[in-house]
Amino acid sequence: MPKYQSFQTIMNHQIPLPAQLLTSYLKLGMDEKELAVILHIYRYQWEDNAFPTPEELAECLSFSSQECSKLLRSLIQKQLLTIEEHKEEDVLKECYSLEPLWERLFTYAPVKSQSSQEFEE
Amino acid sequence: MPKYQSFQTIMNHQIPLPAQLLTSYLKLGMDEKELAVILHIYRYQWEDNAFPTPEELAECLSFSSQECSKLLRSLIQKQLLTIEEHKEEDVLKECYSLEPLWERLFTYAPVKSQSSQEFEE
Amino acid sequence: MPKYQSFQTIMNHQIPLPAQLLTSYLKLGMDEKELAVILHIYRYQWEDNAFPTPEELAECLSFSSQECSKLLRSLIQKQLLTIEEHKEEDVLKECYSLEPLWERLFTYAPVKSQSSQEFEE
Amino acid sequence: MPKYQSFQTIMNHQIPLPAQLLTSYLKLGMDEKELAVILHIYRYQWEDNAFPTPEELAECLSFSSQECSKLLRSLIQKQLLTIEEHKEEDVLKECYSLEPLWERLFTYAPVKSQSSQEFEE
Repeated sequence: MPKYQSFQTIMNHQIPLPAQLLTSYLKLGMDEKELAVILHIYRYQWEDNAFPTPEELAECLSFSSQECSKLLRSLIQKQLLTIEEHKEEDVLKECYSLEPLWERLFTYAPVKSQSSQEFEE
Repeated sequence: MPKYQSFQTIMNHQIPLPAQLLTSYLKLGMDEKELAVILHIYRYQWEDNAFPTPEELAECLSFSSQECSKLLRSLIQKQLLTIEEHKEEDVLKECYSLEPLWERLFTYAPVKSQSSQEFEE
Repeated sequence: MPKYQSFQTIMNHQIPLPAQLLTSYLKLGMDEKELAVILHIYRYQWEDNAFPTPEELAECLSFSSQECSKLLRSLIQKQLLTIEEHKEEDVLKECYSLEPLWERLFTYAPVKSQSSQEFEE
Repeated sequence: MPKYQSFQTIMNHQIPLPAQLLTSYLKLGMDEKELAVILHIYRYQWEDNAFPTPEELAECLSFSSQECSKLLRSLIQKQLLTIEEHKEEDVLKECYSLEPLWERLFTYAPVKSQSSQEFEE
């Protein structure tokens, strides 16, 4: 018989996934690889790693860190991901922010094209 | 300014995603397309559609319902997905079950090959 | 050995609870009984019962439906809970809305007194 | 207009609450105050504080740390909460475990009395 993780472990590893991400990533111009990159960034945030490297992200991806870097740039270009800077004890730290993605997902009728998005804001 | 969904709507659309799915889908022999198919089946379960068609699944996927069918067969072959039958008012109904996937994800040390998995059980 | 629920059942019964509700219910003028009433309303919403009766709510409470009714009135008076009306196939239906509670929980610095709350809005 | 927390903050503060806890705490011999103590322990676990003091717990409770201590003892006596010890860099550390509670909640038909529970196990 397999030995299962404790319920405590199972409960402590649940990440709230907005259904809107699943129904809208296509409309937002993402494919499944980009979705996976987003999900891994989100998971690292939960594990208190706010700026995982492409190598760290690629550990659990079916493709290379080079392709991951390319997708990260593409997500940033599409304004679904941003890199933010903040000071922590006088050291400038960078972290990924998924806020632009959440904002578009939680907008009443998800906006499709970037131009209309810019117009609305 | 964009009009956001109510917090009530946002709260009611959170699906608990086990972090283990993200860290282990590769070890379980899945790629990002198969991960997306699993996530969409899971989402339909939450919306009380326990047996979405490949067409319904493909609505939010970047690939065709034909490719989706192929991936569904592949997931069933890898024993990560099963189709279960149950009677509902004398009508035989089918539904997808993710239980085999959860069982493998929540096993203490996720098992890699199918043969060793069979041995353990 | 006890027989456990399937992981599928366990996963499908997770309700996302905002940590802010736990850290702020006291500041919002609620006590533990009122917190429990809110949690039960929220759970019924998840089970697609948007307007549970005091009797239904009291089923899982340590106190009577009379006391539950009293607490519901108190929560409405404190503007943490509202009753909304909507038409469903020409029939006027009522449902509870937790939106005013979420709005106060998710405000940057949770507002304490009702008067200042009114002023801000 | 009130200033809301970022969606990122809202998403990162969702704790998965098993609906079974809400439907079963009464059957397990708990009342609303004990439920609140459990919820606060669970929240502190999420914030990486695995052994909050009664004073820390009482910060967000409507009652004193003395009453909180009494309820903690009562929960331990009812075998819903345990204190576990583990070594961390040669220092013996204590933490609360909710595992006994989860085990009883996720048992197929939640067991009511302690004696039958002991019999089953």
